Amino acid sequence: MHALNLTFLGTSAGVPTRERNVSALALTYAGRVFLFDCGEGTQQQFLRSPVRSGAIEAIFITHLHGDHLYGLPGLLASLGLNGREAPLTVCGPPGIHAYLAAIPYRGTPYPIHVAEVDGEGEIVRGRGFAVRSALLEHSVTCLGFAFVEDERPGVFDVTRARALGVAEGPMFGRLQRGETIELPDGLVVRSDEVVGPRRRGRRVVYCTDTRPCRPAVELAAGTDVLIHEATSGNDYAQEAVERLHATAAEAASVARDAGARKLILTHFSARYRDVTPLLDEARAIFPETVAASDFEEFPVTAPD
Amino acid sequence: MHALNLTFLGTSAGVPTRERNVSALALTYAGRVFLFDCGEGTQQQFLRSPVRSGAIEAIFITHLHGDHLYGLPGLLASLGLNGREAPLTVCGPPGIHAYLAAIPYRGTPYPIHVAEVDGEGEIVRGRGFAVRSALLEHSVTCLGFAFVEDERPGVFDVTRARALGVAEGPMFGRLQRGETIELPDGLVVRSDEVVGPRRRGRRVVYCTDTRPCRPAVELAAGTDVLIHEATSGNDYAQEAVERLHATAAEAASVARDAGARKLILTHFSARYRDVTPLLDEARAIFPETVAASDFEEFPVTAPD
Repeated sequence: MHALNLTFLGTSAGVPTRERNVSALALTYAGRVFLFDCGEGTQQQFLRSPVRSGAIEAIFITHLHGDHLYGLPGLLASLGLNGREAPLTVCGPPGIHAYLAAIPYRGTPYPIHVAEVDGEGEIVRGRGFAVRSALLEHSVTCLGFAFVEDERPGVFDVTRARALGVAEGPMFGRLQRGETIELPDGLVVRSDEVVGPRRRGRRVVYCTDTRPCRPAVELAAGTDVLIHEATSGNDYAQEAVERLHATAAEAASVARDAGARKLILTHFSARYRDVTPLLDEARAIFPETVAASDFEEFPVTAPD
Repeated sequence: MHALNLTFLGTSAGVPTRERNVSALALTYAGRVFLFDCGEGTQQQFLRSPVRSGAIEAIFITHLHGDHLYGLPGLLASLGLNGREAPLTVCGPPGIHAYLAAIPYRGTPYPIHVAEVDGEGEIVRGRGFAVRSALLEHSVTCLGFAFVEDERPGVFDVTRARALGVAEGPMFGRLQRGETIELPDGLVVRSDEVVGPRRRGRRVVYCTDTRPCRPAVELAAGTDVLIHEATSGNDYAQEAVERLHATAAEAASVARDAGARKLILTHFSARYRDVTPLLDEARAIFPETVAASDFEEFPVTAPD
């Protein structure tokens, strides 16, 4: 099973603080890097983290607010100055193409494929995974993203296969691939006699900025990890409503309703030097909650 | 005399490194801040420095390359989110207005006055100072800037005034302001009998990115401090020619030809982990040279 890791590069909402930069999350899968949001200073955060920006394969921008976006031109320029030649995919809401086109560049020596996304569905199919989008509830068009690993084969029951008389070797492989085989003695063995049901791949869902909403719950259904914004605590719940953000408790309710395995809070207002109260409020609703810090890493494991 | 201080917020060329961010220089004069260039991450550098970004009065952008520019949208947005109401002046080359207009903002709650500058002369007249521009030699339109403090009154010779029979008090002030006075005994005293010639104000000149050039020498004539790019050392002198940058030695020749009092090198290529060789090459030509580091501060004093 490939390593799947999350590295938070920025966990502050709106403005950076000395401790937290604005939004960016690096997802590493099988050595390839996928970046979710790119607030100003993300390329500098990469320099301070173990994740290599040169390994970025695709960038996903949730919405066109500066704290999720303004690091993109600099990162794209620096990748070029550092000699990148491989194509790069940038997915974001409508308007991202015009934004990038309006920036004065020195020109990037690699192709950038910009895909504007304005709905829900599969937006990228990669080797071993897909990325899906949903439309969240914010003051501007805002996308939620799900990184969905492909299904893995079911568990192969070696003891049962041997008991049925299957010899180790090519027959094992055919059964694992779902084929029905006939043994030399004429016995027919179906794959499902020795291979368990296919296992769902791992999932990571990223929802910021948004009110708690049905599309987020649906996108996060049964996810291994839900990353959800928690701009404020219960003390500023009304402001969260007015500015179309979520409180930590509301993020927890999304995780609970989705049946997520784990919730990671991020996008904290700069007014909170200590986010422990927010974490406590979330855990009262969804105990498997943590609060992300800049440069913190989370391995994503499978449930089985 | 007002305090005049320089704080380097970024001293790397092109791409940031772990030690050096991309270009930005804060000049503090009488508690007001003037920012020269605004590479990505400048607002974060402010957070790590003693200079308050909220005190910025004007921003001067040399040219529209990302490492001097991409921090501007985020800084402007954060000033607004932090409650700024005072107007802000942004001066830069032609195109800067279109650049700012194309950025998706949430809207800044304070007015931004954008001035496009395409030549030499006085571009800002402030309380106690002016800023002048010159056209440098780079691959795109690039401005050099001179911060020029107003002239200060000449030295008042108290001993001589007393010897002439002038009583301490209002008469002193009138003489210092250049007036001719008549004493009770009928003696006439001219200002120039007791006040020395007016003294030139302090000057700081900022030239990056550029080849060594005549406009830089003229802008820096007799300056107290010349800040000049030194993208490379003699080892990459040919690359400096091709990319329209300057070597440290070339920066030193500009300081020497201008009769500057002090040279501060900045804008070092990320290939130099240690800039000591560049500093040595410059000092061989202009001994009063230092190499800036991020967050380093330099007070600017008057020669007399």
